Amino acid sequence: MTDYRRLRVALLGAGAVGSQVAALLRQHADELADRAGARLELIGIAVRDVDAPRETDLPRELLTTDAESLIVGADIVIELMGGIEPARTHLLQAINSGADVVTANKALLATHGPEIFDAADQVGAEVYYEAAAAGAIPIIRPLRDSLAGDRVQRIMGIVNGTTNYILDRMDTEGAEFADVLADAQRLGYAEADPTADVEGYDAAQKAAILASLAFHTTVPLDAVHREGITSIDKSMMDAARHAGYVIKLLAVCERLSGGPGASGTGESISVRVYPALIDRTHPLASVHGANNAVFVQAEAAGNLMFYGAGAGGVQTASAVLGDVVSAARRHIAGGVGVGESTLANLPVVPVGRVTTRYQITLEVADQPGVLATVAGILSDGRVSIATVEQTVAGEDARTARLEIGTHKALEQDLSETVDRLAASGVVERVVSVLRVEGD
Amino acid sequence: MTDYRRLRVALLGAGAVGSQVAALLRQHADELADRAGARLELIGIAVRDVDAPRETDLPRELLTTDAESLIVGADIVIELMGGIEPARTHLLQAINSGADVVTANKALLATHGPEIFDAADQVGAEVYYEAAAAGAIPIIRPLRDSLAGDRVQRIMGIVNGTTNYILDRMDTEGAEFADVLADAQRLGYAEADPTADVEGYDAAQKAAILASLAFHTTVPLDAVHREGITSIDKSMMDAARHAGYVIKLLAVCERLSGGPGASGTGESISVRVYPALIDRTHPLASVHGANNAVFVQAEAAGNLMFYGAGAGGVQTASAVLGDVVSAARRHIAGGVGVGESTLANLPVVPVGRVTTRYQITLEVADQPGVLATVAGILSDGRVSIATVEQTVAGEDARTARLEIGTHKALEQDLSETVDRLAASGVVERVVSVLRVEGD
Repeated sequence: MTDYRRLRVALLGAGAVGSQVAALLRQHADELADRAGARLELIGIAVRDVDAPRETDLPRELLTTDAESLIVGADIVIELMGGIEPARTHLLQAINSGADVVTANKALLATHGPEIFDAADQVGAEVYYEAAAAGAIPIIRPLRDSLAGDRVQRIMGIVNGTTNYILDRMDTEGAEFADVLADAQRLGYAEADPTADVEGYDAAQKAAILASLAFHTTVPLDAVHREGITSIDKSMMDAARHAGYVIKLLAVCERLSGGPGASGTGESISVRVYPALIDRTHPLASVHGANNAVFVQAEAAGNLMFYGAGAGGVQTASAVLGDVVSAARRHIAGGVGVGESTLANLPVVPVGRVTTRYQITLEVADQPGVLATVAGILSDGRVSIATVEQTVAGEDARTARLEIGTHKALEQDLSETVDRLAASGVVERVVSVLRVEGD
Repeated sequence: MTDYRRLRVALLGAGAVGSQVAALLRQHADELADRAGARLELIGIAVRDVDAPRETDLPRELLTTDAESLIVGADIVIELMGGIEPARTHLLQAINSGADVVTANKALLATHGPEIFDAADQVGAEVYYEAAAAGAIPIIRPLRDSLAGDRVQRIMGIVNGTTNYILDRMDTEGAEFADVLADAQRLGYAEADPTADVEGYDAAQKAAILASLAFHTTVPLDAVHREGITSIDKSMMDAARHAGYVIKLLAVCERLSGGPGASGTGESISVRVYPALIDRTHPLASVHGANNAVFVQAEAAGNLMFYGAGAGGVQTASAVLGDVVSAARRHIAGGVGVGESTLANLPVVPVGRVTTRYQITLEVADQPGVLATVAGILSDGRVSIATVEQTVAGEDARTARLEIGTHKALEQDLSETVDRLAASGVVERVVSVLRVEGD
């Protein structure tokens, strides 16, 4: 066996991912040493309570509540605590004490990314965060390195497993949101408090990270437009299916021409998370269950898709360990870390400036002249109609349902037009308004 | 504009990929400088004939036939000549003169990879070859870095666009091989001499590269079992569809337990390229046209898939430029390059030692007792039957067609058993024997 140099690895957090990382570090120690060119010695695991019951068997002597002392002696620090504090303080301490850091903390990077990357740049360290963007799916290196010579035009990601699981079951089983959510909670696919998932907060954090990387721009979390899936019901699923679509919660990161505050190149970007319709023949439509996928459109490379498990303790541990090996190789090789490239610094436009196609479902009075009135309002609002279908009669005989597919329209125009439709007198109810993505 | 250090880039070859690389280097010069942290100055393009007609407009003053002089003055050398010589000599010269090298040359890496990687290790340079494995699909960094802390169990790749285009059209249109090939040649999807594609040579080179990376093992090209698609006909496509399968040319790289010469861990690997059946619900089944995809199964990460364009000048140029930016960043950052990790050094077993399921189609005499005889021969040969179906009668009334699906069997056992079936007297013709992959 080769006599390798030793690198001291400190682990912060021993939850679902942390305990798997600890187990794999010991289980594959020899193989990891061969690949990293150094033995990765786990010197300690910082936890809140040393005596808390744990699923995985961790060596008692490695556990400590003193994260700060642990960090001081480490070459590589793995932060898997989650949340903003004390994770932020610990990461900055690790960077300033000369360690390379690995983190899966999307909330922290989406809110304090620039502070952390700047600190790393100052000392020539590197921040590795493959597990923060799309779980086990390798997407950071493809975006940061493989596509560094290309221009990303658009990313569409299914980056939250819980919501994809729920929407997929609603689609395939014709079930209602609340029933599937309850089931998902029972099976462990959704948290007791599902807000972070179903309201799109988790996806928005990942969208901010992906957009920052893809467009070489700092994207603050509050610039990400976010809508959840709680308003999606069976009838919307049925209408989508009927029209050849499926509803997915998408994180869309898009390069636009122009827009307010557009850069010297006349470009801006949009970053948004919402449930959207995509054509059933689109590769993202066949991402089932709790799986994730990131669809990337680049100027030269064309269409790429990265598919895999978006969450799970052992899956995410794979991404973390890949980062640990990279950090170790860098320690051995020397040289300063690759910093985050944010020099493009494109402005992020509000969602109102985005153009997409829409599918609008209206319940209207079943009387002559209604379609002419609706068409007139759309036309006045600069929303051009592509298809109209009167799908089902209302519950009583007085109303009919109109399915309107639009050409590309400005979100702001569309939104104002829908308000006018609602107030027009001929529209009884705006059943749903959904964007169509993937053109 | 930031005042960057300049890095001198030499380009060897100005074909479909090279001319796109040259164009993009100039077109996106400012953006590339921001991302690389250095201005990438194209100092020359080595070609065979300076006056040859070219599709893309290249600056006449950059063209030279003197590759050696060009290499001497370069920080980064991009080799896009293809073929073994003089590409090999030039790459080694570049490495020894202190340059980092980028290549898309799969033939060279599959045959002389160890020599080139060793040379780079000696001087601390790095060899970048994203474009050599699956065209524009980022697969090298995911395998080398992102999954470095995991254990890859299996890779199944559709890594040749021409054969996927042909098989996809045969499947969707019910066309015959020769007709689609002629069409593919007319449309530019296949070369005038299609041997490298349709006989699986191109896929075998990529399989050797992918397996070397995934299993940290030097995989010589002649250890890759290779079969092409020229024997696939409409009736096999129809039978596959009937049984719920689709036929794809797959590059399969698999970790096995045991096998002759198994390593200390009791492991070995198999690397093979052949047309195989995969279930229509498998993600690889929906890879259409000339697209490529690499499906990776890893111990911790689970199933991952990477999808995109496998070829094309501008698409491949994207992968090359990503490598150029990486090489430039390394030049700036300092430190030695990450060498190839081949320490696992697992033995590659012959295809006879592989177990898969099989789908066997036989034309048999339509008389009592035939099935019993066939079943007996299979059982004697340690091939266990999973399904049997008598699908269609032969052209005359005397014969019937048997579709036999087997459980997993050893290739060697299966092959000997098929020979015995052919010689049994009750089998008129062995119509086809296809492996089933993707379990």
